[in-house]
Amino acid sequence: MIDEKGILFILSGPSGVGKGTVRKSLFEQSTDLRYSISMTTRAPREGEVDGVDYFFKSRDDFERLIGEGQLIEHAEYVGNYYGTPRQYVEETLEQGKDVFLEIEVQGALKVRENFPQGVFIFLIPPSLEELKDRIVSRGTETEDKVKNRLHAAKEEIEMMDAYDYVVVNDEIENAVTKVQSIVSSEHCKRERVAHQFKKALEEK
Amino acid sequence: MIDEKGILFILSGPSGVGKGTVRKSLFEQSTDLRYSISMTTRAPREGEVDGVDYFFKSRDDFERLIGEGQLIEHAEYVGNYYGTPRQYVEETLEQGKDVFLEIEVQGALKVRENFPQGVFIFLIPPSLEELKDRIVSRGTETEDKVKNRLHAAKEEIEMMDAYDYVVVNDEIENAVTKVQSIVSSEHCKRERVAHQFKKALEEK
Repeated sequence: MIDEKGILFILSGPSGVGKGTVRKSLFEQSTDLRYSISMTTRAPREGEVDGVDYFFKSRDDFERLIGEGQLIEHAEYVGNYYGTPRQYVEETLEQGKDVFLEIEVQGALKVRENFPQGVFIFLIPPSLEELKDRIVSRGTETEDKVKNRLHAAKEEIEMMDAYDYVVVNDEIENAVTKVQSIVSSEHCKRERVAHQFKKALEEK
Repeated sequence: MIDEKGILFILSGPSGVGKGTVRKSLFEQSTDLRYSISMTTRAPREGEVDGVDYFFKSRDDFERLIGEGQLIEHAEYVGNYYGTPRQYVEETLEQGKDVFLEIEVQGALKVRENFPQGVFIFLIPPSLEELKDRIVSRGTETEDKVKNRLHAAKEEIEMMDAYDYVVVNDEIENAVTKVQSIVSSEHCKRERVAHQFKKALEEK
């Protein structure tokens, strides 16, 4: 038997960029990816289902799981914990299936420490894409506004540096298609494929 | 203006694997890729058009062009020269357009020396893919036959090592889709994209 592990894909990006929408649209289409459901201590919102949208846990349970090392990453936002359960990710990858995470930037950086071989995708707003044009055609905005925008853009670009891919979320379909291309092409990477063939030959 | 160069894609692989068929099918579909037409001294075959299928040249002209450094790579097969004209590739990349080459393994290795930033795709026959299964389920073939196959497979895997991607040519449509995914995802690579944004910010 050839041990062929799945690939871990991480979709992240600045808050408000539309990570959730891209992820949902991706999973509405036919895909071999397995979505890793996050764990949270916040109360379920109308229509949210435990084990589908999130694993909903009490604060005590969540802190116990942190203590036991059962979360790959976790963070606190507005008084609530959010995290990625380790077991599902590791077992699914072991079974040779790809796992897909959609998480905040802070969490993605922690996942990178544990899974440096993961494929990290940074979703950016189209405004950053437009930046290139906007910066050359100046004059219409106050100097302060331009400075603020440049500062925000610089911060986003620095966050990018920890990622393998950058996808512009100009239109959801475009972004989804690009994520699908990344998934497909990562499976063609020579480092992954040649290794499998070499192993097969050595085992003979 | 942001100088955004095109990407050079090279499709190669063992002879007989179906590189030409995959390339033709790729270009029959909508694509932004520009195909770099090869130059040859062999006589045009029935239906072949100069400047479409090949640039047909005399042996004297071809050797003069080699001398002038006007070919990125060239090789001789069965008494005829084949090569890739430098000017078209360089000018098209400068214009920000992607260039696609479909060449022999020997030539691809030479292109790698000139264009290490190119994206090298190795097309393999499905038999190599099946190798993984075949090797474990042995016994049906003579030991010599198995040995020969293993030897051939090992040579192909060693050629692979100079490439970025490996695509199995099991079905033409599958192979074409994978090549398209590679083209799309390469444009999302953080190294390429972040650089553009950084440059835009510095130019301000």
